[in-house]
Amino acid sequence: MAEFHSKIKTIEWKGEYSRMVDQTRLPEHFEYVDIKTGDEMFDAIKTMIVRGAPAIGVAGAHGVALYAQELEKENLSREEFVKKLFEKADYMASSRPTAVNLMWAVKKQKDLIKNSESDIKGIVEELKRNGIKLENEDVAINKKIGDYGAQIVPKGAAILTHCNAGALATVGYGTALGVVRSAFANDKTVKVFADETRPRQQGARITTLELTMDGIPTTLITDGMCSYFMKKGMIDLVVVGADRIAANGDAANKIGTYTVAIAAKYHNIPFYVAAPLSTIDTSIKTGNEIVIEERSREEVTHINGKIICAPEVNIINPGFDVTPHELITGIITEKGILRPDYKKSIAEAFAG
Amino acid sequence: MAEFHSKIKTIEWKGEYSRMVDQTRLPEHFEYVDIKTGDEMFDAIKTMIVRGAPAIGVAGAHGVALYAQELEKENLSREEFVKKLFEKADYMASSRPTAVNLMWAVKKQKDLIKNSESDIKGIVEELKRNGIKLENEDVAINKKIGDYGAQIVPKGAAILTHCNAGALATVGYGTALGVVRSAFANDKTVKVFADETRPRQQGARITTLELTMDGIPTTLITDGMCSYFMKKGMIDLVVVGADRIAANGDAANKIGTYTVAIAAKYHNIPFYVAAPLSTIDTSIKTGNEIVIEERSREEVTHINGKIICAPEVNIINPGFDVTPHELITGIITEKGILRPDYKKSIAEAFAG
Repeated sequence: MAEFHSKIKTIEWKGEYSRMVDQTRLPEHFEYVDIKTGDEMFDAIKTMIVRGAPAIGVAGAHGVALYAQELEKENLSREEFVKKLFEKADYMASSRPTAVNLMWAVKKQKDLIKNSESDIKGIVEELKRNGIKLENEDVAINKKIGDYGAQIVPKGAAILTHCNAGALATVGYGTALGVVRSAFANDKTVKVFADETRPRQQGARITTLELTMDGIPTTLITDGMCSYFMKKGMIDLVVVGADRIAANGDAANKIGTYTVAIAAKYHNIPFYVAAPLSTIDTSIKTGNEIVIEERSREEVTHINGKIICAPEVNIINPGFDVTPHELITGIITEKGILRPDYKKSIAEAFAG
Repeated sequence: MAEFHSKIKTIEWKGEYSRMVDQTRLPEHFEYVDIKTGDEMFDAIKTMIVRGAPAIGVAGAHGVALYAQELEKENLSREEFVKKLFEKADYMASSRPTAVNLMWAVKKQKDLIKNSESDIKGIVEELKRNGIKLENEDVAINKKIGDYGAQIVPKGAAILTHCNAGALATVGYGTALGVVRSAFANDKTVKVFADETRPRQQGARITTLELTMDGIPTTLITDGMCSYFMKKGMIDLVVVGADRIAANGDAANKIGTYTVAIAAKYHNIPFYVAAPLSTIDTSIKTGNEIVIEERSREEVTHINGKIICAPEVNIINPGFDVTPHELITGIITEKGILRPDYKKSIAEAFAG
């Protein structure tokens, strides 16, 4: 299979700090920001300087390493150091509630601390190395997802995606857009329809940017338009990412995904979720148990700082929705494409 | 049935000119603009200073009167006057291609000219009076639509609407929002969910404004969210307007409506279209014959003059979509609620 090299490295450990693309300034400004303390990382995740489930997983791991660096300077006993670092790690994991990768990556760091026999200095070094290891693993996993996913993309297909599950949602290749990249590497006639993805417009601001940077033909549409193009036969399949997947295959992803899934079902268009196994939370049976983050009023009422509605209108702003497993054709993972019955195929992927 | 008085008069003939709310400046500025020539009216319709199928119908009728006023000053023979005015009327009807009310209202003016036995001065006066008559009829028709529609709104219902089929889409009461106003007049616990309606955000900019001005509780949501709230049981019915309805009940309305209709079907939520009979074009058999206006690239790529995506991305921007009749629970008209089989019920409404 042809290899596709994306130009983007979203997050990277640089010796003593974490460097990341500042995603709040896209698409006008493509700039890096250096995150040097644990609290800065907490804020970077919360304010979505870094976003996308796999990327904030790595960010969380880096954040724990940053807190460890800070605590190292406090002359604590090893026991006090570990106790305080565990508290900081749990705090880091609370920066966003829906993406399971964050909890997963923070737990990886906590497990490392628990199992380490090193002194404080040694633990700090191990946490940094583990952060870098998670970066590299993320890219490798995404490439596997991309290559499995490319197998289900027909020649010349138009792929609809929602939000951004791309290089900028991960360390550097993407899950849903990893599938796009791998498919495009083999077949230059593949093209993408990108949903704008209100309220935060990650589809417009991020997906169109990273795909056009990589030379992949991309059409931006508003969120309500998907059915129009589906009916016209202009969309061959849908591939989206996920923030948390339950043991039965129900998948939480950016608000609006569920609407796209219903439209795809109505038009008999395959609907795939692309995500690493770390996004699957086998501790929850169904999507009903997934906590949906409520985000701020201003994300809906304002765009670029300007109000777009009557100031006194009510707002409810759920950040995610859950697509029930019965609308999902397959879940593309680094261990292959899982198919219904997901309870069975997910359990097998974790066992195998 | 209780009467509800809206505060808004969208378009009004004022002796020698047409006065309208400038809808391109909402919601920050609620201002009137005076349209004094036919060409100004053509531009006002094209640039959506006035929008909404019934309102642009009246605007078109006013526009023909404005052209007549201008031609009156040219010292033409009656024959030349009529010939030139017919050309101007056809030009006016071409300002927007999808809404049938525009063609319908211009044809009303052309029929008047054809049947008039007056001199030029008399024809001009008759065209002005007919413009005012169409204004008054529009409000009366909308009140009937509202009152019929209110009968299918359950106590305390949450009504989802898309785009703006309100007072600001008509002369002063609204079609879909006429249903809301009549329902709210009877039951103060009725509330509205308003889709933002990208790209032009008429739901955010216009619907939330006119409903909160009238004290009706309104929640603004982004276009992708509708299914989320439907699944939660927070939406009891959908009521939208229409720009053109075919003889079989297929209904063209603002882009995104079709997606909402599919989501409503999936959740077994009633989906109603509210429109005057003048919106029904019995000359076309199905929605496939409806011309869909392609609008500008900038409506998608820019908001408030600022770009929101990669500058080189492709754009396709259909202004409308067609909801097939099988997704429509009923069409609320001034002659009652039409039900499937629409071919039959529409034919009966026109015959009766």
